[in-house]
Amino acid sequence: MDAGSGSGDKAEFFTQGRRWLKALPVKFKANMVAMVRNIRKLGQDDPRRVIHSLKVGLALTLVSTFYYCQPLYSNFGVTAMWAIMTVVVVFEFSVGATLGKGLNRGMATLMAGGLGIGAHHLANLSGHIGEPILLGFFVFLQATISTFLRFFPKIKSRYDYGMLIFILTFSLISVSGYRDDEILEFAQKRLSTISIGGSACAIISTVVCPVWAGEDLHNLIALNIEKLGNSLEGFGDEYFKRTGGEESKDDKKFLEGYKSVLNSKNSEESLANFAAWEPGHGRFPFRHPWKLYLKVGTLARECAYRIEALNGCVNADIQPSSEVGSIIQEACTNLSIESGKALKELALAIKKMVQPSSADSHIENAKSAAKNLKSLLKSGIWEDIDLLKVIPGVTLASILIDVVTCTEKIAESIHELASKAQFKSVEPTLSTEKLHSGQIQSVKSVQMVNCSHVVINVGESTLPSPPSESSSAPNASKQRMEV
Amino acid sequence: MDAGSGSGDKAEFFTQGRRWLKALPVKFKANMVAMVRNIRKLGQDDPRRVIHSLKVGLALTLVSTFYYCQPLYSNFGVTAMWAIMTVVVVFEFSVGATLGKGLNRGMATLMAGGLGIGAHHLANLSGHIGEPILLGFFVFLQATISTFLRFFPKIKSRYDYGMLIFILTFSLISVSGYRDDEILEFAQKRLSTISIGGSACAIISTVVCPVWAGEDLHNLIALNIEKLGNSLEGFGDEYFKRTGGEESKDDKKFLEGYKSVLNSKNSEESLANFAAWEPGHGRFPFRHPWKLYLKVGTLARECAYRIEALNGCVNADIQPSSEVGSIIQEACTNLSIESGKALKELALAIKKMVQPSSADSHIENAKSAAKNLKSLLKSGIWEDIDLLKVIPGVTLASILIDVVTCTEKIAESIHELASKAQFKSVEPTLSTEKLHSGQIQSVKSVQMVNCSHVVINVGESTLPSPPSESSSAPNASKQRMEV
Repeated sequence: MDAGSGSGDKAEFFTQGRRWLKALPVKFKANMVAMVRNIRKLGQDDPRRVIHSLKVGLALTLVSTFYYCQPLYSNFGVTAMWAIMTVVVVFEFSVGATLGKGLNRGMATLMAGGLGIGAHHLANLSGHIGEPILLGFFVFLQATISTFLRFFPKIKSRYDYGMLIFILTFSLISVSGYRDDEILEFAQKRLSTISIGGSACAIISTVVCPVWAGEDLHNLIALNIEKLGNSLEGFGDEYFKRTGGEESKDDKKFLEGYKSVLNSKNSEESLANFAAWEPGHGRFPFRHPWKLYLKVGTLARECAYRIEALNGCVNADIQPSSEVGSIIQEACTNLSIESGKALKELALAIKKMVQPSSADSHIENAKSAAKNLKSLLKSGIWEDIDLLKVIPGVTLASILIDVVTCTEKIAESIHELASKAQFKSVEPTLSTEKLHSGQIQSVKSVQMVNCSHVVINVGESTLPSPPSESSSAPNASKQRMEV
Repeated sequence: MDAGSGSGDKAEFFTQGRRWLKALPVKFKANMVAMVRNIRKLGQDDPRRVIHSLKVGLALTLVSTFYYCQPLYSNFGVTAMWAIMTVVVVFEFSVGATLGKGLNRGMATLMAGGLGIGAHHLANLSGHIGEPILLGFFVFLQATISTFLRFFPKIKSRYDYGMLIFILTFSLISVSGYRDDEILEFAQKRLSTISIGGSACAIISTVVCPVWAGEDLHNLIALNIEKLGNSLEGFGDEYFKRTGGEESKDDKKFLEGYKSVLNSKNSEESLANFAAWEPGHGRFPFRHPWKLYLKVGTLARECAYRIEALNGCVNADIQPSSEVGSIIQEACTNLSIESGKALKELALAIKKMVQPSSADSHIENAKSAAKNLKSLLKSGIWEDIDLLKVIPGVTLASILIDVVTCTEKIAESIHELASKAQFKSVEPTLSTEKLHSGQIQSVKSVQMVNCSHVVINVGESTLPSPPSESSSAPNASKQRMEV
């Protein structure tokens, strides 16, 4: 603090203070505008958020009428509080999460209530001094055991909340019994208020603009595969345009789409977990094979790792010389565009829930492009070129060839999904001629997929190809016959 | 059911039933044994789980004494229930998570209690009919707004639980006020019982065998980098042994260690989030730079993507021919072993919280191995070999060279962490001579890192190297001078 060192300093201090005070409303206004913009963006990104918030408000207001209506209040009294609590805690964004939490809460309350009453009666038998000791021991024992059980991965993923409520209810009911002998009524009131709150959540979340976790998972997987396809399609053009000398940093954003796929594991798993709690909805029956989506997601992530490596090539300091580029450009571009198209067709097939046969021809094209690329690499045209200049091109080519393998695996897993989930086969009315030639092509390609599985595997394929699943390809071709 | 088709079938049915009944105890015993084994394994994997369970039991038993002691019960009555609730809900595995939840719950209750009382008074003014309508409107409004705010990523990551409790408390207190005019006492009781439960959690989780999220994050990052190092070290040997003809599927497990690094993002982020709530503990002061660990973690993950690509080479169907293998073997093995050693030294430096200067020499070695590899690729010895046979080796080499770049970046970020977190410089007493030569080497290497940053960048380096951070390397060398 040097405010006291002179009158000039003091004056300056006050001037600064006045300036700061004058700037305050401007700053405040700027902050408010930024906040409003943020809020609007959050709502526009996913309008279901706004609807969800309104739904929570509605459920809470409905349940709080218990307090306002005399007949309801005289029945439940203060325990109506638990209905409010249940709504606040159980109401989640998706129907599956809400139902899962509600069922967990209900079942856990029922079981823990029964056990708690049992513990209370047992403790009652042991006399005035023994009762609190025995009750304390029971509470300690069940809390310790239940907490430990929560570490089991299977329990953690599906019943974690139930275990929590089990501990809570058991402790509350067995301990309350010490003071209040109307423990049965207490337990029954807790159960019924929780059921009322839970039912309100379940009904409002299912009926009013429901958000289905299963549908979200379905769309997320389709979107992720589409992103991979976009990145691949754009890649070929982008890479060789750049080595041709033109720079286009702005256009590269769509190439980055795959990045979000790299870390999508957790959201996929939790969505699949929620989806398992949901009843049939829209196009998805109860017991839709949600787990297969996780398999497709894992393969998509493996493909994304490859594209990450490709992206490394785009950003590398050393680019293939133009003579190398011109030799492999066509095959590479073809390969990446065809793989990209195949992935986009697969994504579209998932979205529309039809058999993904239209992707097969693109996969065939990608495979023949890979064959081309391989024979180019085999040919003698490289002998005159410095190997160091060839390296970036060769690396690129072998990663691309690996991408084709990944794409094939994704297609297989989606074929499996399509047959297990009984996706529709494509209607013959849609441009029959094109479809017809497509059919022949795709039947051929399915045969080729089945018999020559590992032929074009150059470079760094990840895993030995699994035995082709008999369920997918034959079913696909059978359903195509029914068209 | 064909049980009625003949007496023979009936007899068989009963025989089967008897056999099933006889087998029941055996099955039951086998299931029990399997369960006990699972439970024991869960406890042995991390004994802190058992301790945590006991701690929860202890806290809950302590808090439930409120019900047993007459003087305590007469003070709080049934509201003592909230103390039990708080313990069950707030007590988490790590200190940071417990403190974070407890503080969230406490602050939210305080704020919502104040607002709830305000809402109650405001509604009170509007007469007998207007009161429930106005109260309902307030509940609806705040539930909607608060639920929407929970979608903000920043609020979601740190204050999600607080927002939940805010909605809960506001609704409870403003609604209860309609029936019970002693609303101030109600709010005060809720706050004090929650504080008691929260304090019990905070004290027990901090004092009795505490589990610190910060320490876990620190160890996780060190372990992940060590895993990468192990995979790289083992890789060189494994790859060329296999191309030499020997198969050793069993030994390959340690190569898979890096896989868990690929998906570690979420656990790292939540640990860093919890760690921010923790006070200083052990070697970590309050405001330890936890966010830098996330940066190191991100770079480690990028390195893991490269190793995933390397793993693709190991599992590829086409392996480099033995003549190609013999040419690049030494350089590749050197490179991967030295990068692996560097990463393991870095992991050790993090573990021991010392300046990571001992890794610098290994990084230098890895860089010169990369140089070697590059000049090998440049040399004319390849002209007689079929290019297709060269491809796997070249791909391998260029990914390995990229791994060196990744290792360098990890080292830089750990240097930054070491200087920001003021890691100790290495004591001069430990084998002075070796250390002395190491010092010269590492000072040299730091200079080299600073001046020639992108020299050895062949193939698919990911991103243009960032401007070398002035904070890390100079500080590191300065601290080394202080030794």
